[in-house]
Amino acid sequence: MGRKRKILAVTGIRSEYDILYPIIDCLRKNDKFDLKLAVSGAHLTQWHGHTVDRIRKDGFNIIDTIHTLLMDNTGLQRAKGTGLLITGLSETVKRFNPDILLVVGDREESIAVAVVGTYMNTLIAHMGGGDAVYGNSDDPIRFAVSKLAHVHLVSSNVSALNLQKTGEEDFRIFNVGNPAFDNIRLTPQLSLKRISKFLGVDIEAKPYIVLIHHPLSSVYQDAGRQMEILLKGVSHFCRENGYQCIGIHPNTDPGALDILRVINTYDNDPQIRFFKTLPRDIFVNMMRHTKALIGNSSMGLLEAPYYQLPVVNVGDRQKGRLNAGNVVFVDYDPVLIIKALKRACADAEYRRKIKLLENPFGDGHSAQRIQKILASIDLEDKNWYIKRGVS
Amino acid sequence: MGRKRKILAVTGIRSEYDILYPIIDCLRKNDKFDLKLAVSGAHLTQWHGHTVDRIRKDGFNIIDTIHTLLMDNTGLQRAKGTGLLITGLSETVKRFNPDILLVVGDREESIAVAVVGTYMNTLIAHMGGGDAVYGNSDDPIRFAVSKLAHVHLVSSNVSALNLQKTGEEDFRIFNVGNPAFDNIRLTPQLSLKRISKFLGVDIEAKPYIVLIHHPLSSVYQDAGRQMEILLKGVSHFCRENGYQCIGIHPNTDPGALDILRVINTYDNDPQIRFFKTLPRDIFVNMMRHTKALIGNSSMGLLEAPYYQLPVVNVGDRQKGRLNAGNVVFVDYDPVLIIKALKRACADAEYRRKIKLLENPFGDGHSAQRIQKILASIDLEDKNWYIKRGVS
Amino acid sequence: MGRKRKILAVTGIRSEYDILYPIIDCLRKNDKFDLKLAVSGAHLTQWHGHTVDRIRKDGFNIIDTIHTLLMDNTGLQRAKGTGLLITGLSETVKRFNPDILLVVGDREESIAVAVVGTYMNTLIAHMGGGDAVYGNSDDPIRFAVSKLAHVHLVSSNVSALNLQKTGEEDFRIFNVGNPAFDNIRLTPQLSLKRISKFLGVDIEAKPYIVLIHHPLSSVYQDAGRQMEILLKGVSHFCRENGYQCIGIHPNTDPGALDILRVINTYDNDPQIRFFKTLPRDIFVNMMRHTKALIGNSSMGLLEAPYYQLPVVNVGDRQKGRLNAGNVVFVDYDPVLIIKALKRACADAEYRRKIKLLENPFGDGHSAQRIQKILASIDLEDKNWYIKRGVS
Amino acid sequence: MGRKRKILAVTGIRSEYDILYPIIDCLRKNDKFDLKLAVSGAHLTQWHGHTVDRIRKDGFNIIDTIHTLLMDNTGLQRAKGTGLLITGLSETVKRFNPDILLVVGDREESIAVAVVGTYMNTLIAHMGGGDAVYGNSDDPIRFAVSKLAHVHLVSSNVSALNLQKTGEEDFRIFNVGNPAFDNIRLTPQLSLKRISKFLGVDIEAKPYIVLIHHPLSSVYQDAGRQMEILLKGVSHFCRENGYQCIGIHPNTDPGALDILRVINTYDNDPQIRFFKTLPRDIFVNMMRHTKALIGNSSMGLLEAPYYQLPVVNVGDRQKGRLNAGNVVFVDYDPVLIIKALKRACADAEYRRKIKLLENPFGDGHSAQRIQKILASIDLEDKNWYIKRGVS
Repeated sequence: MGRKRKILAVTGIRSEYDILYPIIDCLRKNDKFDLKLAVSGAHLTQWHGHTVDRIRKDGFNIIDTIHTLLMDNTGLQRAKGTGLLITGLSETVKRFNPDILLVVGDREESIAVAVVGTYMNTLIAHMGGGDAVYGNSDDPIRFAVSKLAHVHLVSSNVSALNLQKTGEEDFRIFNVGNPAFDNIRLTPQLSLKRISKFLGVDIEAKPYIVLIHHPLSSVYQDAGRQMEILLKGVSHFCRENGYQCIGIHPNTDPGALDILRVINTYDNDPQIRFFKTLPRDIFVNMMRHTKALIGNSSMGLLEAPYYQLPVVNVGDRQKGRLNAGNVVFVDYDPVLIIKALKRACADAEYRRKIKLLENPFGDGHSAQRIQKILASIDLEDKNWYIKRGVS
Repeated sequence: MGRKRKILAVTGIRSEYDILYPIIDCLRKNDKFDLKLAVSGAHLTQWHGHTVDRIRKDGFNIIDTIHTLLMDNTGLQRAKGTGLLITGLSETVKRFNPDILLVVGDREESIAVAVVGTYMNTLIAHMGGGDAVYGNSDDPIRFAVSKLAHVHLVSSNVSALNLQKTGEEDFRIFNVGNPAFDNIRLTPQLSLKRISKFLGVDIEAKPYIVLIHHPLSSVYQDAGRQMEILLKGVSHFCRENGYQCIGIHPNTDPGALDILRVINTYDNDPQIRFFKTLPRDIFVNMMRHTKALIGNSSMGLLEAPYYQLPVVNVGDRQKGRLNAGNVVFVDYDPVLIIKALKRACADAEYRRKIKLLENPFGDGHSAQRIQKILASIDLEDKNWYIKRGVS
Repeated sequence: MGRKRKILAVTGIRSEYDILYPIIDCLRKNDKFDLKLAVSGAHLTQWHGHTVDRIRKDGFNIIDTIHTLLMDNTGLQRAKGTGLLITGLSETVKRFNPDILLVVGDREESIAVAVVGTYMNTLIAHMGGGDAVYGNSDDPIRFAVSKLAHVHLVSSNVSALNLQKTGEEDFRIFNVGNPAFDNIRLTPQLSLKRISKFLGVDIEAKPYIVLIHHPLSSVYQDAGRQMEILLKGVSHFCRENGYQCIGIHPNTDPGALDILRVINTYDNDPQIRFFKTLPRDIFVNMMRHTKALIGNSSMGLLEAPYYQLPVVNVGDRQKGRLNAGNVVFVDYDPVLIIKALKRACADAEYRRKIKLLENPFGDGHSAQRIQKILASIDLEDKNWYIKRGVS
Repeated sequence: MGRKRKILAVTGIRSEYDILYPIIDCLRKNDKFDLKLAVSGAHLTQWHGHTVDRIRKDGFNIIDTIHTLLMDNTGLQRAKGTGLLITGLSETVKRFNPDILLVVGDREESIAVAVVGTYMNTLIAHMGGGDAVYGNSDDPIRFAVSKLAHVHLVSSNVSALNLQKTGEEDFRIFNVGNPAFDNIRLTPQLSLKRISKFLGVDIEAKPYIVLIHHPLSSVYQDAGRQMEILLKGVSHFCRENGYQCIGIHPNTDPGALDILRVINTYDNDPQIRFFKTLPRDIFVNMMRHTKALIGNSSMGLLEAPYYQLPVVNVGDRQKGRLNAGNVVFVDYDPVLIIKALKRACADAEYRRKIKLLENPFGDGHSAQRIQKILASIDLEDKNWYIKRGVS
């Protein structure tokens, strides 16, 4: 066998890392690959749980850490942070000289990897291209990354089609399914008792819903007010119906601080409990047993189908994404939110229908497919490197 | 009248500035606009003529200068330089808070402006989108910029069509023609004597050709060898046919240094004279009187039609671009280069045909059109800001 | 009269700006000077009151803003922040080309200005050199800045002597007094009613003390625990003696977050009220009427003498500084803290003695002196620029 | 035995690396230490021989490379480069978490290491402090670094005294001699034939002098003109006396480009031959056999005494340094230069005197001493970390 393929995976936030995890776990166990990580952004700040510690604990070889999160609550944070990341990452790439750069999604890390790989003539493998979401700065970034990436690892046929529509060449596009499902599939079952104990919330005694809500960059000034409405509805629903709510803190985009401020006002509400972050095994098992998911996380569209879980998506953040049929969209209106939660949690017919939905995002075996693709690419073939802007 | 529209134009290299010039000259004379410039890259280094001095002399209001060119001859220079530019430019945008960011082309400045504008929610007007060129890292960058830009100011119908093919919405695309023609149209005529005197080359006594040749990023290691072949052919042609050759130094991409080294070996060749850079009026008048253009500059395809000038494009750098019919492509082979130059300079029938070609790139009145477009955009209309990745 | 002297003042935090204010206010009113500001660090973050807004409101001409505060709670924040500041500031200096750089104190801004001025051959005027404080990373930074600065504007004879001891040449050292006193002297008197109303604290009804406490960089891990002790003592003192406490949030050094966490636990204590920041006029008048100052702010040693105010300094942070006699140092021990506060607030003899102390830091007319010095320096005289490392 | 001490040595240019080499070679062979390198600046650019390749070949473990050299011929290059270095190096230090940072001299690397170590609370061991040189921006930088460094490894008693004069505490100061002598001592002897062959200069047939000349930052605008005078004198001396001259290219400071331009005009002079850089063994053996050294390199004062070599120092660059008696200073005047060279090369009495001079810079066994010091420091002792600005 020849020399190992050098893969550099880049990750900047926990949600992204969770998607990446099953793939990089697979790659490092395969002796065809020499896998290294570069870690940046929210992973490196105590404000967001300093999740680089988890990556270290997971045993990955981190060859660079690049601090990029500025204490700023405006768009400058994301712009300047991207500049800092490119500045640092270009040195990492020069030093490690990877054969393939691997990145997920549509955040600063994605566009940074895409720019560095393009100028440094290094193959870019991108996961999550072709997903279409309406109204977020992440959406054009995702498509810009696809114009630069050399290998598209997409999660559904709809995404594959979207990339073709933007002129991407067929030979670069691989439908591997949603790798997040690998992650879920492989997570060991925990007892309700154990989950309850960890959370400090008795989920055996009372049913619960999960809330994950992020700011929407195009209207980040409204983030606080919208969170107030959402929590008003959720709180009312829990009180009336004997439910509990387990929430997760938002990401670090502009507006997140306003959301956190609203969350703090519910500190003393016994039905509602927020966590900055949760260990992966707790999180997955919590999702396995929740009655519904509410908020605007991409998880509602991308992962909830695997859990056969009803989702109430509040606001526009995920509009335009492929909906397997398990998601209803409601506006910021407490009455509508309460009504949608009731249907999601208590309408037996509705819940049965969702159990029967077909999952367009694959079967939880993405990592194997990705591994084969990355092993099979002929790195000497110039066609991989020369991208036509339009085919 | 309401408040002025704040425009921030960003430029990093002389070739780009030349295209930008007629537009920003038009904008600053219009009191609807408050025009400022941010200057970076090759403009700021003595190695490339320190052309920021010319911009200052032209009287533009420069609110930021951002040094980005590293002393490095590999792809790291472009990657890290882009990081430095984004890092600095995000501060400029925060401070000046422009309504519109204006940028040309497909270099580091373009992608930097696109990233900053996207994250800082500022309208990006991009000139030159949709042009398709084969084999250069600039090509995917140009299309990635288009996925982020909000207003596309394109130079031909072919480019407009290319953008539509990649999913860009119609209402954002404006065919304004090639603004470089405005520049040419407005440049005063100089006498042959004056040009000769400036160049130190007697262009009245002997005919001449112009040579502009840049490295191609995907094969930059070959840049030196290729330049040797090209200059061997040119030198032979000049000697045999009584021609002179006036050359311009390459841009700063990786490989440029190797090209410069080869150029230096012709220091003592009386027929060949190279300039680091030339004043715009001298350059345009030199182009008006040259017999042909050789090399691989985009000028051959984009500007030479306006001069009705035969072009010999050597190598692959401009392949895939719209050819008005005045350009022939030849490989790196001295014999083919000499043959093509003979036909371009001395075949009367061929030269007549080129005089009659229709120019697909407009009429030299782009600046007026762009000015009207930038004045007419409703900055309050959210549709401009929300980009769909695929339409 | 010749051309104006171009002064660039650099500021990164409110405390520093307050010292700078009387000088730059003086300089801008003098038509011999062209004064500009570059603003960075804590001024630019919402976490610390976004005090750049105040600078804008004060009417200064800000030619650059440089975001440097990273979301990090370790020493990396200060190191990388200094790197970002130098990176940005070198561009500002290149663009504005000042005759003199003006900076205060011993924070990131000071060393950044010193490095930029040294390499860019620009005269550095530094305020606050020669003060000696024990145990903080700010102390060696202050002396390193003095080795680079060309003009030392010091606040007392002791500081002047300290600079001579480190080999600085006499002709560079000017004792101008503490400019903070100018600021205090010029602040208009406000009524107790007005102050009470602003603070939402009735200072007519009950006496009060002021608390300002920052983390100490060499033991920042202890910052939270130490704050707990301090607030325990203060809270007990207030309860027992019918006092109120008005506190100000700490600066942004590592450990600050832990201090803020402790402060939050006193949110519901009616005797203790914290402010992120206060308008200058409110602050000065609050200091004029407080019974004592507690904590570890440099204000205790540098400014309190002007107010003839007893100070209880807790911990080591200001140890080694010149003590006019108004400051007592106590360890982190609630009993000692309470005892020291009682003496400071209620021991009539002790309070009388402090009223009679001589003030070694000048008379509140520093700005005039500094203005004259900056106007009189012969900018053509090479001796100013050539620093001997040791004289 | 406990865990290894983690040492991070930082180097930015070949001259510095040469001094560092014997120490780090010693440290890596000692299993008490875990030695890593961070490499930046001139080492990483093809313009200066890309000397990182040599460091790799020497087998050191490089954990970071940080590109900092901008294409700029003014002071901005050094200032912004320092910013970039601090920005990158703070990440390296965070990641590797060294016990001791090791750096040499007075360039950008030194001040960057000093700032990073200070803010990140990491012990800084600095070599070369206390040397006094007149008129260069490097001089105040060196003393500023000493105010921040925790351990001073100085090369002579005069340097130790200078540090004491600036308030540095005795317990931090160690006179280890000049480590460059270790390097020289350990370099194997090469035959004249072999040296001649490598250089392409027959040094058996004709005597030769060595020329090393750098720009002086305070008068960098004069660098070109001064080099013209110097080379005029040298060329005349060689022609008249049958000598050859072997020169080395200048460093990268502002003005270097102008010096290179002048050097190029001597391309065809058969007596004068310039090299961008030379392998260490060739260089040392060349120095062993040269008749004299001319220019303004610090080598004249610091290393030439070890070779017992007469030196002609032209201009002010090394003024103020400890002169063992082997250096004469002359102004930029061809007549004086010629006269001084004659005396240095041909005055037997003068040459005998120089052979007898005592060497104040030690005995070529610095590495052993430094190794012992770094092993013996009690890393738990807080006194090492707390620097008093003035003692």
